[in-house]
Amino acid sequence: MAEPAPGSLKQGLREDGWFTELSTLWPGTGLSLKVDEMLFQGRSDFQDVAVVKTGAFGTVLILDGAIQCTDRDEFSYQEMIAHLPASALGRPPKRALVVGGGDGGVLRELSRHASLEEIHIAEIDGMVIDVSKKYFPQMAVGYSDPRVQVHVCDGIKFVQDSPKGQYDIIVVDSSDPVGPAEVLFQKPFFEAMHRALAPGGIVCTQAESLWYHLEIIKSLAAMCSEVFQGGAVQYAFTTIPTYPSGQIGFMVCTKAGDGKPLDAREPRQPLPAAPEGRDYPPLRYYNHEVHRAAFVLPTFARDALAGSLSQF
Amino acid sequence: MAEPAPGSLKQGLREDGWFTELSTLWPGTGLSLKVDEMLFQGRSDFQDVAVVKTGAFGTVLILDGAIQCTDRDEFSYQEMIAHLPASALGRPPKRALVVGGGDGGVLRELSRHASLEEIHIAEIDGMVIDVSKKYFPQMAVGYSDPRVQVHVCDGIKFVQDSPKGQYDIIVVDSSDPVGPAEVLFQKPFFEAMHRALAPGGIVCTQAESLWYHLEIIKSLAAMCSEVFQGGAVQYAFTTIPTYPSGQIGFMVCTKAGDGKPLDAREPRQPLPAAPEGRDYPPLRYYNHEVHRAAFVLPTFARDALAGSLSQF
Repeated sequence: MAEPAPGSLKQGLREDGWFTELSTLWPGTGLSLKVDEMLFQGRSDFQDVAVVKTGAFGTVLILDGAIQCTDRDEFSYQEMIAHLPASALGRPPKRALVVGGGDGGVLRELSRHASLEEIHIAEIDGMVIDVSKKYFPQMAVGYSDPRVQVHVCDGIKFVQDSPKGQYDIIVVDSSDPVGPAEVLFQKPFFEAMHRALAPGGIVCTQAESLWYHLEIIKSLAAMCSEVFQGGAVQYAFTTIPTYPSGQIGFMVCTKAGDGKPLDAREPRQPLPAAPEGRDYPPLRYYNHEVHRAAFVLPTFARDALAGSLSQF
Repeated sequence: MAEPAPGSLKQGLREDGWFTELSTLWPGTGLSLKVDEMLFQGRSDFQDVAVVKTGAFGTVLILDGAIQCTDRDEFSYQEMIAHLPASALGRPPKRALVVGGGDGGVLRELSRHASLEEIHIAEIDGMVIDVSKKYFPQMAVGYSDPRVQVHVCDGIKFVQDSPKGQYDIIVVDSSDPVGPAEVLFQKPFFEAMHRALAPGGIVCTQAESLWYHLEIIKSLAAMCSEVFQGGAVQYAFTTIPTYPSGQIGFMVCTKAGDGKPLDAREPRQPLPAAPEGRDYPPLRYYNHEVHRAAFVLPTFARDALAGSLSQF
C-alpha cells in the first residue's frame, strides 16, 4: 500500500471492507474503520465526496479520502470550534460567519447563542451541503435556523467582499491544507478576515494536530501574529477519536479592540443553550472548564509555540 | 478481517506490511501503522511479545497484538501516570511501587523525584523487561537508578505481601483489562493496594479511554470509591496518538489521611527534574498547568462519572 496524495476513498478502501485514512500529512499511519455500507460516492467540482456506514462511528463523511466527521464524535469538534470564539467574545455576538463547514454542525452550535442575529455560511461545495442534509440530519439541523443565510461560493472571495468590520466571529471549518482548503491557511485569507472582523472580534480556524503538525502550526501562528497585530493569537485543542492522532486544534485570533488584547482562555458569555422550542441535542463536550483547559498545552507544544503565540 | 480476541501480532499484520491494532475492546476500528522491520517476536509465559520498527512512531512494543508504547509518544503516558500522583501528594514521596511497567518508562519518570528513597517494580513478565532494555534504551534507563529494586513476580501477590502502609504512591501501568492484566482492574487488587498505601498515599492506575470505555471507567470508579472510603477517587487523562481514540486516562485514588480528603487536581510538589548528573530527556508533556487541566472532563464524561467520582 503506497502513500497516496490526498485522493479518493478507493485509495484507502480494501477488498475486505476496511478503510484506512492515508495521507501525506501523516505518513506511515492512519485510522482504520470497518465499512459496513457505502451510502454515497460522488465527485463534485472540487473533491471526492463519500458517505459510509460503520459500526464503530455510525455514518462517516469522507472528502478526498480524509475523514471529516462521524455521527459519534463530531460534537467535540463542532462545539469547540464554535463556542471557543463565541464564548470568549467580550460582548454577546450579533453577526457570525462560517467559512466551509458545509455539514452544518458549526451552524447548529452557533445557533445556540441567542444573541446572534445573522449567521452566514460560505461553503464552496454544494454537494457537501446536499449530502449532509440527506445523511447527517443531526448536524444539518443547523440549516433550519431562520438566522442562517447560505452562500455557496468561494469563502475567500466572500470574506474579501464583506463590509469592513462586519462580523463578531468568523469560524473557519476547513479540511486539511492540501487540496481545495490550502488557501484557507494562507495570509491573504487571514488579512481579509481581519478586515471583515469588528474590533474585538474573533476568528477561530481549524488548525491541525500538535502531535503531527507542530511545524505547520508554528508557521500559521507566526503568520497570524503578523496579521492580528495589537490583538492576540492563541491555540486550543479538542480530543476526537477519528481525527489523526485523536485530537485537533484551533487557532484563535482576536482583533484589537478598545483597551488591551482579549485573552480568549476566559469564557465571558453564558453557557450556550438549545434554541427555544427546538429539538436540539444537549451540549456534550463544551463547558466553561473545558474552555479554559483547552488552551493548556503539553510542554513540547507550549515551548515550540512560545515565540509565535501571544503570552498573557 | 474478522475481529480477533486479543492475540498475536500476526492477527493484525498484513502481507503489505501494514499492522492494524484490532481488539474486542474497540471493535470495527483500530490504528494502522506501516511496519518497516520486525525486530523481535516471542512468546513469554504470559503473552505474545513483539517489537517492530515503524517510520511514523519509531520502535513500537506490541503485547498480545495491542500497542503498548512507541519511541515517539511514550513520554505523554509515562510522565502523566508517574507525576500526577507524585506531584499531588501532600508530602515529598519517599517510597513508590510500580506494578507492571516493565518497559521502565515509569521508573524513569519516578526517578526525577529526588525525595524518593526506594522505587520498587513488580512486573510479571521478565521478557518485557529484557526486550525493553534491548530495544527501548530511553525508557529502560529507569532501571539504572540505584534506588530501583526489580521484582519479577505477580504484582497482586507482591502488593498483598507488602507491609501495611508501606508506599506513598503506587502506579499501576497495566495493559488492557483482557488477558493477563484483567485482575489488575478488580476489587481484591485495589483492596490490597489500599492496605499497602500510607495514609494520604495515592494510587494511579491506567484507566482506559473516555471515548471508548466509559462504562468500564464508571464501574472502576464506583469500585474504587468503595475501597477508598474517606479518601478520594478522581479521573484524569492524557493525549497520546498510538492509544485507542488518541487518549488514555488514569484513576487517581487517594487514601484517607489526616484531615479532609486530598484533591489530586492540585500539584503540591516541585516540578520533577532530571536526576543530578544523569543524561535524561527533559520533561516533554507534564507541567503543573497540564496537571490541573488533565482532570477537566468533557461534559459527556463529567456527567456520566459524576455519581462515581469524588466531588470537590
